[in-house]
Amino acid sequence: MSRDDYEELLARVRRLEDESAITRLIMSYGPAADSGLTSSAARLWLDDGKYDWDADGEPHRGSAAVDAMLQGDGHQGLIARGVAHFAGPPLIDIDGDRATALNYSLIMRREDDRFFLWRVSAARWDVERTGSGWRVRRRTNRLLDASGAGRRLFGETLRELFEDVPS
Amino acid sequence: MSRDDYEELLARVRRLEDESAITRLIMSYGPAADSGLTSSAARLWLDDGKYDWDADGEPHRGSAAVDAMLQGDGHQGLIARGVAHFAGPPLIDIDGDRATALNYSLIMRREDDRFFLWRVSAARWDVERTGSGWRVRRRTNRLLDASGAGRRLFGETLRELFEDVPS
Amino acid sequence: MSRDDYEELLARVRRLEDESAITRLIMSYGPAADSGLTSSAARLWLDDGKYDWDADGEPHRGSAAVDAMLQGDGHQGLIARGVAHFAGPPLIDIDGDRATALNYSLIMRREDDRFFLWRVSAARWDVERTGSGWRVRRRTNRLLDASGAGRRLFGETLRELFEDVPS
Repeated sequence: MSRDDYEELLARVRRLEDESAITRLIMSYGPAADSGLTSSAARLWLDDGKYDWDADGEPHRGSAAVDAMLQGDGHQGLIARGVAHFAGPPLIDIDGDRATALNYSLIMRREDDRFFLWRVSAARWDVERTGSGWRVRRRTNRLLDASGAGRRLFGETLRELFEDVPS
Repeated sequence: MSRDDYEELLARVRRLEDESAITRLIMSYGPAADSGLTSSAARLWLDDGKYDWDADGEPHRGSAAVDAMLQGDGHQGLIARGVAHFAGPPLIDIDGDRATALNYSLIMRREDDRFFLWRVSAARWDVERTGSGWRVRRRTNRLLDASGAGRRLFGETLRELFEDVPS
Repeated sequence: MSRDDYEELLARVRRLEDESAITRLIMSYGPAADSGLTSSAARLWLDDGKYDWDADGEPHRGSAAVDAMLQGDGHQGLIARGVAHFAGPPLIDIDGDRATALNYSLIMRREDDRFFLWRVSAARWDVERTGSGWRVRRRTNRLLDASGAGRRLFGETLRELFEDVPS
């Protein structure tokens, strides 16, 4: 095997490892948030990353703000009654030290002896490679409701990722 | 490293890349369908591929028919009110230039201030490698209801994939 | 490429293959259980593996006990009416010949012309490499309800996996 063969194979393995690491990043949020490990969940973001969680709300600016939100009464009340911040499998597009991922984000809540789907959102993750692994630059959630906000987030992101999608 | 070592390692990396590409194919359908990018969603199928979407309905024959279905009043009405065509993580079995995947396919719809699970199906994807990546030869969906259709689709496929499953 | 380069690359490919195999193991349970292939589902466990399915129930001890449970009236009644034992994408941590995975486990049941979320649980999988692939040493499920059992399972596991999580 030539040095070029080796370098090419190594680059392919690295891309697969990047996909694995980004999937792990995305899959870490729910279990950390639902167990109240607020700083572990918040640390997935860059210090100056954003969590733009709804079209009608102010984004959380910075990982410290994500931590504060998770420590707040709203989130703590959810986890006391029982909640699942479920992340669907991501569609990942890697471009060097940046990547974009799309998935469905579901929040399930306990009610009587069953659960219900409270929020079903389109989610977009803009992530970056750092010295200590991949981190979230911006997470954007938009409800898949009649407002069309989730629909637009999925559509705009797919148009960016797949050049041949008609605009 | 010998040439044989290299070829073997390369084949293993290719299999992982195939799994990644097939996962990406399957995960692309929902966001494309839910955002109304009908031709992007339809293009996941081979020109003469099939979408056998229910035991009680006619399959959509060809990617153009998938596109037409997505442009139709039924699907357009769903996305106007809010809908998620959610694909669960796939169980993938690759055999050269063909592969079979099984997953759960969920359709969630908006109602008042929450969402509900409208359809929960067993899904089977028969996919093929082409010059421009993996494409869908046939997608089969069957409801996991009292008809037993979903149950049979999962069972028959698992028996094919795992030779040691008793028939 | 030196022998060391080769060995290191091979180890990285093996880790990715392990992740793929563990994902496949976890994703096999639902389709096997929901199609009534009870011995295929049970065989995912080690002969002396455990399925600790709820805080208020006795664990199934051994793969034969898992098989017996799946053949029992409770499970058979569920699949006759329509059910989905859905596994969310796992967060996997591999340590040599053992690995731990966390995911959400959802049971969806048919009711009238739609489905409902019956159980939403935190799931922990302790798996081991054997001569015939990865098998389940112990699967632990805990409801994400007001009891806090699911919350604790996620929290305790994350603290084990990520050393820097404050206890």
